[in-house]
Amino acid sequence: MPLARNAKPEKRVLTARGLATRQRIVAAAADLIYAASAERVSLDEIMEASGTSKSQLYHYFSDKDALVRAVIDIQTDRILQANSKFLGPLDSFEGLRAWRDALIQANRLGVSGGCPIGSLASELSSQSEDARRTLDQSFLSWTAVIESGLSRMKARGHLRPSADTKTIALAVLAAIQGGILLSKTASNSQPLEVAFDMALAHIAQHAA
Amino acid sequence: MPLARNAKPEKRVLTARGLATRQRIVAAAADLIYAASAERVSLDEIMEASGTSKSQLYHYFSDKDALVRAVIDIQTDRILQANSKFLGPLDSFEGLRAWRDALIQANRLGVSGGCPIGSLASELSSQSEDARRTLDQSFLSWTAVIESGLSRMKARGHLRPSADTKTIALAVLAAIQGGILLSKTASNSQPLEVAFDMALAHIAQHAA
Repeated sequence: MPLARNAKPEKRVLTARGLATRQRIVAAAADLIYAASAERVSLDEIMEASGTSKSQLYHYFSDKDALVRAVIDIQTDRILQANSKFLGPLDSFEGLRAWRDALIQANRLGVSGGCPIGSLASELSSQSEDARRTLDQSFLSWTAVIESGLSRMKARGHLRPSADTKTIALAVLAAIQGGILLSKTASNSQPLEVAFDMALAHIAQHAA
Repeated sequence: MPLARNAKPEKRVLTARGLATRQRIVAAAADLIYAASAERVSLDEIMEASGTSKSQLYHYFSDKDALVRAVIDIQTDRILQANSKFLGPLDSFEGLRAWRDALIQANRLGVSGGCPIGSLASELSSQSEDARRTLDQSFLSWTAVIESGLSRMKARGHLRPSADTKTIALAVLAAIQGGILLSKTASNSQPLEVAFDMALAHIAQHAA
């Protein structure tokens, strides 16, 4: 009993430490992969950047593919988190414009990097069925959050009852992804602005 | 004089052969890179696929970057060629819908591959300034061809004189690129359909 009583908190401490180590590996991998690509980054580089050993890394991830899936998850969380300030309470055209402005402002600051999920989707969707499924889930989560906002706009009477919010949300995400890709290639935010404004005009076509 | 007379045709023959060899290298590289990525494909694989030697390859391309730029050029030509049937004579909404249907049909047949230029833009724009510029030129050529069609629609009175055809063409390309990326990730053409229909509705907002 005393042993068990001691062991339990110790196990809890180890778990917290373990989670922190795992988190450190994934964060380092996410940053390195964002700066280059999944293919260009080696496990050795990730170990070095996160200050972990090979045995630690393989304790948490069976292989590089498993680590890349964790990177997709963390990047999805980061994107949803970064957009939640605008998408969380979104229920008006004013809110849509505030979101547009914030996303374009963020793009101006980091235009050359592109979207971390869009880049991984482009790189991995035709290389790994597991990665493709994880990336598809990421885009679906993103579409669902946009759709929630559009549904609230509909509930508040800003959009017509006939507006197909799911399809509109998918079109908005496509405009954003295409705009970010063209902006990264042009090295300026104009394509994203133009694409986002098309998406807003598209939503406005369904205004009540 | 007789030597020169003989040398001239021989040089011409060599040049034709040289062009064919160069073309064979670029075509093999384009196919391999489309199936994987610029990073994943080695010069050895390209030599093997094109049946050329290292000295032949380096005769035409100073390094892999130069070869990748030639791949971007050939893929741009292929895309413009494949779309020219629709974009060349484009001057009506009917023509736009025919283009939409053809592009979606092509996407259905090869949805998992994505766009060869979009994929290279995603992979290389933040890795190589030379590649980024070449890819930006590729997108600009594509935008210009779409814009020509929209300008003809305007000249024929289908679009209002105030329609900013350059900006609309850029938005259309962004919708296509985003749609192709999401379709590749979802492994079905619905995102491209939805994105393209948004782009057509956007053009229709400028109908005369």
